[in-house]
Amino acid sequence: MVRLNEVRSGELAVDLPAHTDAGVYFIGRIHTPWTDRLTCPRQGRTCAPPCRIELFAPWDRGLDSIAEFERLEVLYWLHESRRDLALQSPKSDGAARGVFSLRTPGPPHTLRTSTAQLVK
Amino acid sequence: MVRLNEVRSGELAVDLPAHTDAGVYFIGRIHTPWTDRLTCPRQGRTCAPPCRIELFAPWDRGLDSIAEFERLEVLYWLHESRRDLALQSPKSDGAARGVFSLRTPGPPHTLRTSTAQLVK
Repeated sequence: MVRLNEVRSGELAVDLPAHTDAGVYFIGRIHTPWTDRLTCPRQGRTCAPPCRIELFAPWDRGLDSIAEFERLEVLYWLHESRRDLALQSPKSDGAARGVFSLRTPGPPHTLRTSTAQLVK
Repeated sequence: MVRLNEVRSGELAVDLPAHTDAGVYFIGRIHTPWTDRLTCPRQGRTCAPPCRIELFAPWDRGLDSIAEFERLEVLYWLHESRRDLALQSPKSDGAARGVFSLRTPGPPHTLRTSTAQLVK
């Protein structure tokens, strides 16, 4: 059974630094039907239903001209992901891999990218 | 003449929030020959010479298994970019566009992505 935020056999959790080096502003919110990681589409699959990206003011001004495009590259912050794993075991079989060789949401920055089709 | 960090005609600078919502750790450093934005390759072009991505410990452990791949998706923080423009004028001709319809380095998060060929 897959458990949310478990540390699996073979995985390596590291100590995070005491301080961050820079800050981010939350400029919007992505609205999807999924409420936790375990039910999310895997491996960047595109799937119905369409989702909605809300941009807070004043950043909604930055949406000007995007209707010219068919697809958007979306960078997003997975605010509930753990950030301390350097090695992860995708199959929970004790075989761990470096996090930078995986698409799994996780360390160290909980940032991910997705190519989204723009619904007009 | 293009000047670094100028605000051009038609561009819109907004007030940044007083506080950030989350923090990032600098986990490495990208070494390239380019020392400012004006000399960087434009529009995501791939070009010689090869560059080097240094990962600080303990995140270098996360590099395990990446040699299996030909290309890497690199997310990086452009720490000297301005973060306050909602509309930008790429050609400095007074015609401004929303920042989310542009590849130009800039607001609000100075985050960019690049697909890099892994040199083995």
